[in-house]
Amino acid sequence: MHYAASITRLLDELERLPGLGPRSAQRIAYWLLTADTADAERLADAIVEVKRTIRFCGKCFNYAESDTCSLCSNPKRDSSTVCVVEEPRDVVAIERTAEYDGLYHVLHGAISPMNGIGAEQLKIHELIGRLAAEGIDEIIIATNPNVEGETTALYLARLIKPLGVKVTRIASGLPVGGDLEFADQVTLGRALEARREL
Amino acid sequence: MHYAASITRLLDELERLPGLGPRSAQRIAYWLLTADTADAERLADAIVEVKRTIRFCGKCFNYAESDTCSLCSNPKRDSSTVCVVEEPRDVVAIERTAEYDGLYHVLHGAISPMNGIGAEQLKIHELIGRLAAEGIDEIIIATNPNVEGETTALYLARLIKPLGVKVTRIASGLPVGGDLEFADQVTLGRALEARREL
Repeated sequence: MHYAASITRLLDELERLPGLGPRSAQRIAYWLLTADTADAERLADAIVEVKRTIRFCGKCFNYAESDTCSLCSNPKRDSSTVCVVEEPRDVVAIERTAEYDGLYHVLHGAISPMNGIGAEQLKIHELIGRLAAEGIDEIIIATNPNVEGETTALYLARLIKPLGVKVTRIASGLPVGGDLEFADQVTLGRALEARREL
Repeated sequence: MHYAASITRLLDELERLPGLGPRSAQRIAYWLLTADTADAERLADAIVEVKRTIRFCGKCFNYAESDTCSLCSNPKRDSSTVCVVEEPRDVVAIERTAEYDGLYHVLHGAISPMNGIGAEQLKIHELIGRLAAEGIDEIIIATNPNVEGETTALYLARLIKPLGVKVTRIASGLPVGGDLEFADQVTLGRALEARREL
């Protein structure tokens, strides 16, 4: 019992957050203790508020503050292209590139027999529903380039291609700024296989 | 505008915490978004609660949930010895050693002319007041072994010794489990200087 009870409680709650060990939790707790009460309360409010306001977009299943997210309801976005991702955070990653102006569809996971996650647990049924209803020309599959993501990509391709919709997959290869010497053999193999004429 | 407004707000608040960059803030925000509302609210509550209940102990200026902290009000602690530290977190560090059963006094900083912090901004006046009132025999100065901490230790020693109270300083030297080869020269010099007969 080195801490007052309410400090212990705060430390317990902070340590449950991802990436925070006892040291970083202690650092944050002491920062909060010395911070203005208004500053600490703004953080507490932001946590409560985000849980109160955020729901899933009824179309793409990204996080949204209303029934339809700001991307789906933006008339400037190209609604003929849909980029399929595993998680809402992937939408943010792709938006940051500023290279894409279509819509999204968030699967909320990837097919993973190891973890007992099958196609029916993902938002795949909802994606198929959008194909017909929204007049989509191209589905870009941007699941992660790992076993689960590739399995999901193949599954989706087999499901969607027969419906006459173009299905593409984001490229795998060496990261820009990367070093051939340090690339793993699978990535390097993919980079060779997917070589393009200059 | 890659995030919904309330997510952006939460990210802004999380990024203000010490040790959290944009990546770790994003990771925590997404964890909170997928967590049970009850879990997220417990964290928010703990933050508000700690600011509401925690004040400074009227005797030692450690964090406390009442006017006197649990250490000062514990009759089993040796009230003739007071360990002087810079910050409340230092009390926790010393308590963890389980080597000390006296009381504490938290200065809330160290003398630092560079940062414009003089003796009058620290709880030194209050420490002198305790010397007479509480019949203290020994003051252990456990400020940090850096320039500010050493300056503060010297200042306190000059102030307290003439009052007939024993003043000691925690030892500097090689950390246990450390390696002579990698010790900095100042620490190694101190370790030599403070050598003890075996």
